[in-house]
Amino acid sequence: MDNQPQLLCEQRDSVVHLTLNRPQKRNALSLSLLQDIMQELERIAGNPSARVVVLGGNGPAFCAGHDLGEMVDQPEEFYRDLFSSCTEVMLKIRQLPQPVIARVHGMATAAGCQLVAACDLAVATEAAQFATPGVKIGLFCTTPMVPLVRAIPAKIAMEMLLTGTPISADRAYEIGLINRVASEDELDPVIAQYCQKICESSRLTNQVGKRAFHRQYAMNETDAYNDAVDVMTTNMLTHDAQEGISAFLEKRPPQWTGK
Amino acid sequence: MDNQPQLLCEQRDSVVHLTLNRPQKRNALSLSLLQDIMQELERIAGNPSARVVVLGGNGPAFCAGHDLGEMVDQPEEFYRDLFSSCTEVMLKIRQLPQPVIARVHGMATAAGCQLVAACDLAVATEAAQFATPGVKIGLFCTTPMVPLVRAIPAKIAMEMLLTGTPISADRAYEIGLINRVASEDELDPVIAQYCQKICESSRLTNQVGKRAFHRQYAMNETDAYNDAVDVMTTNMLTHDAQEGISAFLEKRPPQWTGK
Amino acid sequence: MDNQPQLLCEQRDSVVHLTLNRPQKRNALSLSLLQDIMQELERIAGNPSARVVVLGGNGPAFCAGHDLGEMVDQPEEFYRDLFSSCTEVMLKIRQLPQPVIARVHGMATAAGCQLVAACDLAVATEAAQFATPGVKIGLFCTTPMVPLVRAIPAKIAMEMLLTGTPISADRAYEIGLINRVASEDELDPVIAQYCQKICESSRLTNQVGKRAFHRQYAMNETDAYNDAVDVMTTNMLTHDAQEGISAFLEKRPPQWTGK
Repeated sequence: MDNQPQLLCEQRDSVVHLTLNRPQKRNALSLSLLQDIMQELERIAGNPSARVVVLGGNGPAFCAGHDLGEMVDQPEEFYRDLFSSCTEVMLKIRQLPQPVIARVHGMATAAGCQLVAACDLAVATEAAQFATPGVKIGLFCTTPMVPLVRAIPAKIAMEMLLTGTPISADRAYEIGLINRVASEDELDPVIAQYCQKICESSRLTNQVGKRAFHRQYAMNETDAYNDAVDVMTTNMLTHDAQEGISAFLEKRPPQWTGK
Repeated sequence: MDNQPQLLCEQRDSVVHLTLNRPQKRNALSLSLLQDIMQELERIAGNPSARVVVLGGNGPAFCAGHDLGEMVDQPEEFYRDLFSSCTEVMLKIRQLPQPVIARVHGMATAAGCQLVAACDLAVATEAAQFATPGVKIGLFCTTPMVPLVRAIPAKIAMEMLLTGTPISADRAYEIGLINRVASEDELDPVIAQYCQKICESSRLTNQVGKRAFHRQYAMNETDAYNDAVDVMTTNMLTHDAQEGISAFLEKRPPQWTGK
Repeated sequence: MDNQPQLLCEQRDSVVHLTLNRPQKRNALSLSLLQDIMQELERIAGNPSARVVVLGGNGPAFCAGHDLGEMVDQPEEFYRDLFSSCTEVMLKIRQLPQPVIARVHGMATAAGCQLVAACDLAVATEAAQFATPGVKIGLFCTTPMVPLVRAIPAKIAMEMLLTGTPISADRAYEIGLINRVASEDELDPVIAQYCQKICESSRLTNQVGKRAFHRQYAMNETDAYNDAVDVMTTNMLTHDAQEGISAFLEKRPPQWTGK
């Protein structure tokens, strides 16, 4: 069992399944696991046959956040490295050309909750829970807070951060942290439906859109529009947009080329 | 029937009803229709007897977005013009002195969904739906995204944009895209109530507030407060604020002058 | 009764109860009351035995906003002073090292609603209501709008601001303006639970986190992460984080020093 890799990466058709595989450690994000995730994400970014990524975890938990076992009595450089590596993974998810779907089958805690917030979409089982409990160990969930407050209302984020109390999957759905709650049996079928819809679109279109989404997010509306007009004009000149609109008008399925 | 204008503009008392009138085209926003809307909005901006605008559509749909029929094989300049004109209309709605209420009785798609997001308020029937399905035609809804992500939680916007799947009026209400769901019979009475409340206030007060709302939206909180203190101080020195407070203290109805 | 102070400040254990005490005036925020609040907040900021603040009001209302009785026919300087003082109080709540919980047992109007929005957490009874009705007196709730639109979805804020119509506690919960609705009997016990959870954490951790929360709120995500990595690295080097993690690994309660 010790020879099992801590990160599994399996492509089925156009879907890459990236699975945290430290079940005994509740998939804690050690520095080494973060480096592995980063490496896989870089590989996926350059793989045009990969159209969507599903990020999940093995064992009872989705992800327990940082690996506390490696965090005591370290020099400042270690901590800075660790939090920087974690941040780079989270930003890499945003920058990846492919959409990333969090598959949350259990507890998502601290940097684990951050992973959910950083993904483009998230689907969870009714048993999943979400928490940022850093206050309980004297380490405020400051980096997890960054995508969390950009996903959910401020006061709800503040409550999670100040109290560490978990929220249920149903509440996470209500406030926009996740896209869907599914029963355990329905988790993978629901995710497969999302993957299928994403794969039906042009790779290029998804990529253009995802990039524009994150780029304009913090701009004021006028700047965001200026950027968006450029993006749409360029998008409109691609083969896939001309083909997509022609196909729609001719009531036939489009033939994407990714160009 | 061909002589029917593509945009109807009718003022009843203080309310301007602006109605998209291309029912066979599901009120698609051709470049020409966008120019007509812009012209009417400029006229309304200069009309002090117009206190509120209700933006609706004739036929089965509220608005299907751009007119795909005119979008194939055009030069870059055409596309840039089209998306710029559309953006100017959306920003003009924000900048209009009068509040604008979207009256959504059917499907609101792509730039049609953007119209809803760009209006100050929106009321929809139970049958209305909201979608940004550009991915299906190879053209990501990048400009519709701009007001959408400023109206609803990020992950829900991302799902709409990546999958193109419509959301119901009830879901749109839950997430803040619209202010109220009404039965078909109640749609106009509910909108009339909003109009009445807005018309009971001072024209000047509404105008000052709407402008300040959009201006401070993307600022950090301290800058927003600096702006807001200036606005409130100036507002307080107007006749209508002095009159409004005096009337309140004297328990009598206020007499607005719009000054 | 005239000798009763307009602001009560009582510390029980680690909790400071700050209570607006102008019941006949529905706790209206006169310039003098705002100055008293500011003074108490400054005192609390420097009091390390105060771990959390509960802000409430005596009488039927939580807070009716500005004191209209003092607002007619004043010079510009008075208004600027008044709105600046109010803004300073609201920003001081954000900057306070301690979390602040609004205890909303009745109507919260205008700057009273702003107080709720400006607090870190808020708990309300089923009878509480929230409104920004400045339009009714010719004075748009421009400064209350600032924290309101940073707490709830834009269109819902716009409706409150343009119509002045109150929303219920249940709706306020749905949209994220408050953290919990409690029956009248449960209001204080629920708040006591929040206080207890906050007091179980390290004072230093809460302080570091609250400050980081508000600082990064309006940044773009990359800048926010840069800030957050610095904060977490520094936080990790404190005694309380090392102790908290060690205690967790050793399955014993942590001993905080606030350092």
